[in-house]
Amino acid sequence: MDTRRSKTATAFVAALTLTLVAGGAAAQGAPPADAAAARPLSPVKPARETAAKRAAVNAVDRHAAELTGLSDRIWAYAETALREHKSAAALADYAEQRGFKVERGVAGMPTAFVATYGSGRPVIGVMGEYDALPGISQKASPVKEALETGAGGHGCGHNLFGAASLGAALAIKEQIAAGKLDGTIRFYGTPAEENYGGKIYMAREGLFDGVDVVLAWHPSDETQADMVSSQAMVDLMVEFQGKAAHAAGDPWNGRSALDAAELFTHGINQMREHVKPTSRMHYTIPAAGDVPNVVPEHAKVWLWLRDWERDEVEGLLARTRKLAEGAATMTGTAATVHVQGGSWNMLVNETGERLLHSNLLWLGPIVYTEAEQAFARQIQQATGVPEVGMFGGIKPLEGQVAEGGSTDVADVSWIAPTLHVSVATSPKDAPWHAWPVVATGGMSIGHKGLVQASKVLAATMVDLYEQPRTLAAIQAEFKAKKGDTAYKAYVPDGPPPVPEG
Amino acid sequence: MDTRRSKTATAFVAALTLTLVAGGAAAQGAPPADAAAARPLSPVKPARETAAKRAAVNAVDRHAAELTGLSDRIWAYAETALREHKSAAALADYAEQRGFKVERGVAGMPTAFVATYGSGRPVIGVMGEYDALPGISQKASPVKEALETGAGGHGCGHNLFGAASLGAALAIKEQIAAGKLDGTIRFYGTPAEENYGGKIYMAREGLFDGVDVVLAWHPSDETQADMVSSQAMVDLMVEFQGKAAHAAGDPWNGRSALDAAELFTHGINQMREHVKPTSRMHYTIPAAGDVPNVVPEHAKVWLWLRDWERDEVEGLLARTRKLAEGAATMTGTAATVHVQGGSWNMLVNETGERLLHSNLLWLGPIVYTEAEQAFARQIQQATGVPEVGMFGGIKPLEGQVAEGGSTDVADVSWIAPTLHVSVATSPKDAPWHAWPVVATGGMSIGHKGLVQASKVLAATMVDLYEQPRTLAAIQAEFKAKKGDTAYKAYVPDGPPPVPEG
Amino acid sequence: MDTRRSKTATAFVAALTLTLVAGGAAAQGAPPADAAAARPLSPVKPARETAAKRAAVNAVDRHAAELTGLSDRIWAYAETALREHKSAAALADYAEQRGFKVERGVAGMPTAFVATYGSGRPVIGVMGEYDALPGISQKASPVKEALETGAGGHGCGHNLFGAASLGAALAIKEQIAAGKLDGTIRFYGTPAEENYGGKIYMAREGLFDGVDVVLAWHPSDETQADMVSSQAMVDLMVEFQGKAAHAAGDPWNGRSALDAAELFTHGINQMREHVKPTSRMHYTIPAAGDVPNVVPEHAKVWLWLRDWERDEVEGLLARTRKLAEGAATMTGTAATVHVQGGSWNMLVNETGERLLHSNLLWLGPIVYTEAEQAFARQIQQATGVPEVGMFGGIKPLEGQVAEGGSTDVADVSWIAPTLHVSVATSPKDAPWHAWPVVATGGMSIGHKGLVQASKVLAATMVDLYEQPRTLAAIQAEFKAKKGDTAYKAYVPDGPPPVPEG
Amino acid sequence: MDTRRSKTATAFVAALTLTLVAGGAAAQGAPPADAAAARPLSPVKPARETAAKRAAVNAVDRHAAELTGLSDRIWAYAETALREHKSAAALADYAEQRGFKVERGVAGMPTAFVATYGSGRPVIGVMGEYDALPGISQKASPVKEALETGAGGHGCGHNLFGAASLGAALAIKEQIAAGKLDGTIRFYGTPAEENYGGKIYMAREGLFDGVDVVLAWHPSDETQADMVSSQAMVDLMVEFQGKAAHAAGDPWNGRSALDAAELFTHGINQMREHVKPTSRMHYTIPAAGDVPNVVPEHAKVWLWLRDWERDEVEGLLARTRKLAEGAATMTGTAATVHVQGGSWNMLVNETGERLLHSNLLWLGPIVYTEAEQAFARQIQQATGVPEVGMFGGIKPLEGQVAEGGSTDVADVSWIAPTLHVSVATSPKDAPWHAWPVVATGGMSIGHKGLVQASKVLAATMVDLYEQPRTLAAIQAEFKAKKGDTAYKAYVPDGPPPVPEG
Repeated sequence: MDTRRSKTATAFVAALTLTLVAGGAAAQGAPPADAAAARPLSPVKPARETAAKRAAVNAVDRHAAELTGLSDRIWAYAETALREHKSAAALADYAEQRGFKVERGVAGMPTAFVATYGSGRPVIGVMGEYDALPGISQKASPVKEALETGAGGHGCGHNLFGAASLGAALAIKEQIAAGKLDGTIRFYGTPAEENYGGKIYMAREGLFDGVDVVLAWHPSDETQADMVSSQAMVDLMVEFQGKAAHAAGDPWNGRSALDAAELFTHGINQMREHVKPTSRMHYTIPAAGDVPNVVPEHAKVWLWLRDWERDEVEGLLARTRKLAEGAATMTGTAATVHVQGGSWNMLVNETGERLLHSNLLWLGPIVYTEAEQAFARQIQQATGVPEVGMFGGIKPLEGQVAEGGSTDVADVSWIAPTLHVSVATSPKDAPWHAWPVVATGGMSIGHKGLVQASKVLAATMVDLYEQPRTLAAIQAEFKAKKGDTAYKAYVPDGPPPVPEG
Repeated sequence: MDTRRSKTATAFVAALTLTLVAGGAAAQGAPPADAAAARPLSPVKPARETAAKRAAVNAVDRHAAELTGLSDRIWAYAETALREHKSAAALADYAEQRGFKVERGVAGMPTAFVATYGSGRPVIGVMGEYDALPGISQKASPVKEALETGAGGHGCGHNLFGAASLGAALAIKEQIAAGKLDGTIRFYGTPAEENYGGKIYMAREGLFDGVDVVLAWHPSDETQADMVSSQAMVDLMVEFQGKAAHAAGDPWNGRSALDAAELFTHGINQMREHVKPTSRMHYTIPAAGDVPNVVPEHAKVWLWLRDWERDEVEGLLARTRKLAEGAATMTGTAATVHVQGGSWNMLVNETGERLLHSNLLWLGPIVYTEAEQAFARQIQQATGVPEVGMFGGIKPLEGQVAEGGSTDVADVSWIAPTLHVSVATSPKDAPWHAWPVVATGGMSIGHKGLVQASKVLAATMVDLYEQPRTLAAIQAEFKAKKGDTAYKAYVPDGPPPVPEG
Repeated sequence: MDTRRSKTATAFVAALTLTLVAGGAAAQGAPPADAAAARPLSPVKPARETAAKRAAVNAVDRHAAELTGLSDRIWAYAETALREHKSAAALADYAEQRGFKVERGVAGMPTAFVATYGSGRPVIGVMGEYDALPGISQKASPVKEALETGAGGHGCGHNLFGAASLGAALAIKEQIAAGKLDGTIRFYGTPAEENYGGKIYMAREGLFDGVDVVLAWHPSDETQADMVSSQAMVDLMVEFQGKAAHAAGDPWNGRSALDAAELFTHGINQMREHVKPTSRMHYTIPAAGDVPNVVPEHAKVWLWLRDWERDEVEGLLARTRKLAEGAATMTGTAATVHVQGGSWNMLVNETGERLLHSNLLWLGPIVYTEAEQAFARQIQQATGVPEVGMFGGIKPLEGQVAEGGSTDVADVSWIAPTLHVSVATSPKDAPWHAWPVVATGGMSIGHKGLVQASKVLAATMVDLYEQPRTLAAIQAEFKAKKGDTAYKAYVPDGPPPVPEG
Repeated sequence: MDTRRSKTATAFVAALTLTLVAGGAAAQGAPPADAAAARPLSPVKPARETAAKRAAVNAVDRHAAELTGLSDRIWAYAETALREHKSAAALADYAEQRGFKVERGVAGMPTAFVATYGSGRPVIGVMGEYDALPGISQKASPVKEALETGAGGHGCGHNLFGAASLGAALAIKEQIAAGKLDGTIRFYGTPAEENYGGKIYMAREGLFDGVDVVLAWHPSDETQADMVSSQAMVDLMVEFQGKAAHAAGDPWNGRSALDAAELFTHGINQMREHVKPTSRMHYTIPAAGDVPNVVPEHAKVWLWLRDWERDEVEGLLARTRKLAEGAATMTGTAATVHVQGGSWNMLVNETGERLLHSNLLWLGPIVYTEAEQAFARQIQQATGVPEVGMFGGIKPLEGQVAEGGSTDVADVSWIAPTLHVSVATSPKDAPWHAWPVVATGGMSIGHKGLVQASKVLAATMVDLYEQPRTLAAIQAEFKAKKGDTAYKAYVPDGPPPVPEG
């Protein structure tokens, strides 16, 4: 029988496991009879509705015009990683004006800041991003047209992200100020998510130490409390140095760094058979010779290694070093492996996600106008995806998927319990990191997502202040899952790579 | 945010899902509070104990000496695939002597047979294998020593498999004969599992058509009703034909088939990134040139493609054809892709597996003597695995794992609902397809497994005759899962590859 | 016996044959009748010394200050390919001032020109280059120091090339004007040798049609009439287009153009075994993905194919197209092969080279001062080559070598008999296309080479005007070697790639 | 200018140089003083005709029937390497019967022997081979038909080789016996040329020490004194050891030796760009996994490295070791490099070859009957080569070619001056190591070649005995070319690989 009888790999089985989870009874029907693959768990308890929660949500509505104004300014600035000077200032100034104590330029990054209000426990943090992506400038229009050719654009919706999170923090601040809640609220202005990983430097600096719970959200094409982990990741530059020679004249005197790079990538591709199915390895070749008539003396492979388990990533990294060393030996070249950065896998907090989900159900779906739906369908038509418009509903909690990805939010999740929710801000299935996300992020569709995100964060935070047992359960799950693991940032020693000028 | 936001790959998520399943209340405790990854399902109902079931199980005990005698003879014959003449005759003769009507030489294979008793519905089938593996002859001894150097050995325990299944069929036959059960019992003598896939030819011949349920078991190092699917698989030989030349004299006139094979395998290795994590591709290179001083004009790559989904395998097959074609184009050679065989993925029947599990629990664990445990530990010591002895307990039902494998039982599972159970016959974690399995398969440890397997199959079959609603539920699940798929054997047209002489 | 007995590859043997060597006064006999491919040369006849030749050589001396002035200006301009506006103007203006009729902007290139004087046959052409190389600015100093950081530099000595050739043309013009010689002298201002191949466009335009003989020289580290051919070459860009996907999210939906490029280059490297030892293939990979988290949808391989036989290059080109096609088929991508340019192999004219050699011997070696030798040795020390100083002697005629290279002069050699001589302008063995060549090209060492080159070209041209039988023999050899081959430029259709602005 | 200006690779240029060719009566002058690498040869002096030479040649005619009888018996035995028991005995017995003192079983090989006659200096040796090739049995017929299916055949004409050389030795022996010549004649029975390299073991044993000149010939499709060197060669087996795992079950626990082998060969193919054009590297992959469902734990690459310079081969060997080491590092496997054998490049003795050539001219062409020509043309038709029949003429001396190959005769050439001549025995251009060579080797065409070879060897040996100055010149050239190089056999330590039984 051509199977491997031993079942010793049980630990790994767990890594692929789909934990399947039911939402409220109202939102979901009975599980399908034959759904062997997808089974409901115990139902989520309905959210508690309190005066403080109602007040916090109303506060978001009250500030909505200001928050969308902030978002629109940041959308227009479209500043990329570690260059978000105007964006960070807009948010920090607003926080300061509203009574927060603001510390700017934290963790060595001029565009990182922390805004705090209140005192004592619990300390609840909420994170906001505001960096844009290069080169995808776009108007708030359902057809592709640059606002400014060649400029950046908010193709990941971080203009909404920062403003909504700050709005939630402000809503809580007002309840503390009003004596309805006790404790500390802290807004983290976290720059450079798209590159460098600003939160990693902030985590390394200890800025999340002692926080009870941290929350974050992210723009998406649907609304869901995120039970799905992210992948641990390490970012490498592998460089080979050979010896140049005239490629027609005396190629026998050359030692090609490109040969080494090609052997290295061949080895990576072979190694795919011999890694766990959860691992991902992907690369580009940023340097591979200048002109054909010179044997290339320098080549670089830019490689990312990922897995849902950080230990696997460490194993891949060790083997990658051997691949580089061997490829150099084979070609008479020298290899260097630079770890440029990396993030940890997300430590999902199920107790917290169930709480977020209950508040999503309590808030109800986002409702769009016909004009907004038409705007969304026009984008869907332009990008060749089904013309179904916006999806305003709430997706049930969902287990682990095979599809991977990484985020610097995950690093925070190993320091404090971290709750994460996605909120719809863009048309279903339209391409991400692309013009459609910029377009809807600059008009009412994005604004509605901003307000909804702000509310669900505020409502959930109210629960954290008001329900000590829930807070304790979240922290207990965090401690159990974290175990003995000590967080250590993947970023290189030294200051963050802040660009000059 | 470096994730893929769209959740369109939902269908695939299901493929990796771990369906987690509880056993009886007695056997398992409460789920661990933090076990996000592994959750109990609804509990398995306790097995029904009836007079017929008690009688069937007693019949197995009554015939135990004969059955172990049959097993020991087949163990000693140690005949490999499609050469199991004496082994098949021993089982067929025994069935005939005990009142079965036997049809020998079915589906073009001299060593395949069907033994039938009774009439009318339901028609329940049970399968038995009896082929050995080449070159692993071994005495029934806890140290490695060949019975006959170079000869075959039952390193997969099929001597036990055939005898136990026939014993279960005989136990049912006696209940039908006694008027305690109504219907037809059929034993399938299925040769050549280790090579060629005898059941595939029998399936192609229609021998499983119209059967209500088919059962099988397999020797293992633990006892468990199998919820785990097997992988669909296709076996290919990819041949390249180039042009020979003197490798020092005029290599520029040669076109190397080995070059083509190396590009082809390079392409396979690259393609690993671009297939589902559930896919497996593995190969050897059986022909790669004769002598170095001739440019190789012929090369062969032997390749297996697998996935838990047959559609994925079909996709891999289509892409493999392109890989071969492209590699030939690149090298000025010609490529041929031969599909040599293949099997389908196992259609797991959860209703049936829960029934098997209930009967395992009803029978209770296997109890070993201290001498048997010492024998097992001696083997474990010799093979460098933990010296924990035999594991006689019953494992809970378990979801899908990442570890793959294929079997021709799976082809049958697309024609009739197929229930499969593993029963311990060898020391925990000792190497499979190796001498330890031969050793314990020839002495009391294997005999105990044989008897236990025979009993659980008999008991479960009694349920199938006595519980029409359970039988109907099993068939309904089968139909729902099978859907419109029409089974088509992967084996090439024409007769099975029966060896001469 | 492990050899290839058949001797059918005779034609190829000839390609590697060393055509031998005539040097000093000693005599050789007639070549053996049957040794077509390999035979001793008759000795070089001593150069004829005539009044016109003496006058022409004196004219070079007379204009030496102007010519070195021109060279120094072009050296300082250091303009790269098709941007040589001031350099071309300096030469064209000088020619015009001295009585030549100048046509500027020929063959679609603003910096190409033809300067003509005289009328009737024979029409003798002499070519001059004047483009610099980017990024190697250097002072006329024996230590590495940029004249202007980041600017270009004359690392191939083309400042000397253009001025010396024009000096020779001027010397002949004066003899025609004085009635000492009859016929037409034509100076070709040929831009963009280092890139694009200006002469190829001029050849395509028909500018060399009807010319009786064309001469050229090139700066070198030694002085020798060039019997060594250059390689035919074709310059390709091979592009692959695949399908992007998130490399962690759904890599199975991606089709990697980089995979295709890697298979393509693997195929190139395998093919090295199956090409003639005279072939050269070398590449870089200018595009190989942008960021690791996206499956690369676009990749480019920049490839040069060369051989001393153009037919071999054509064969390599056909096979390269197959390599690209096959790599695309293997990876589910699309391939495009762009021929970007290319040059022919040099049709060496032995009769003409013997004439050049005789005039080199007649002129005698270049004599350097001790300061110049010290300058050269300092460069040699700095660049790690033997500190032997300048080599002023005349190397004997020499046969084909294994070391390859290409030049656009070769294209002209298929339209008119082309005579080529190297003259020492830089320290022996110092690196080419590098700062040492710039350094000596801007001071007296380069100036001495300029004058010597100008003289040997002038003296040889006098012979061509005065010795109709020698001219006829040169043309007969050209016709015999060229045979039926019709020249066709490798450059793409359409105008030359003149940069804007 | 895209060429490599430096001419430092001069030593290499010489390696490809065609040393030229003297044939008929026409005279050449002295080579130029500075052209060490490339110069015309002086014409070959006509052969001296003496009484002893006439007598020796007549002796060959006199023994022709016996010699062809010996050849036909060996042709029929068709014994392969180190199994040539009957063939060696036939030759040794004949030598003994004719008065030679025979030492059998020399150098550890039962089928190697030395037959000696005479005493004192000079000591002239002549070598004879007699091993057949496996699997190419063929009748003496112009159509392909096996004499005995599956048996060996003399596809390299060694049946003729041994008999002709012994015939020449016998002719000399008779002149010594008659007092016409003084010195020692020695026939070397050299087995196993096609495999193992018998002469290498004989050389290692010192059997050629102190011999003044050694001669050999080889069957061919044309007649020529061989100025062409052979390639130095080393034969390697590169083994990789990894770790097996179930390829579907837990491939992540496997480390594939086949992956290592594929990286290794990829590295070999890349390295082709970075070796001299004279180098050859070719391989097969004799072990590359057993069955696809097990990660291959063992793989072997069989590799030959060659060049016309042994130093280059040593360089390739050192780099190959690095390739193996690096490929193992990359894949987590272990590599072993076994040097299995190898031969040196042939030290061509031009003085000796000129002497051979003069005697070929003196003997004149081989004349074939119309029936023989028809036989040859029928073979040519059957094998698809031009139907030109036999070529009986004498080819002029010829320089180095690009086509490579190796022979164990070359090892001898570093111990004593070795003269080698090819004589036509098979149809022009018909495939070698194939049935046509067997066919003509067993009938009159082969017999005529045998007699001609015997005569030219005998005539040349007479010159060596009679012309002390020529002998001294041959030895002086040998010493000058050999220089300080100390011969060391490439074969592994220990006895030759004599097969059992």
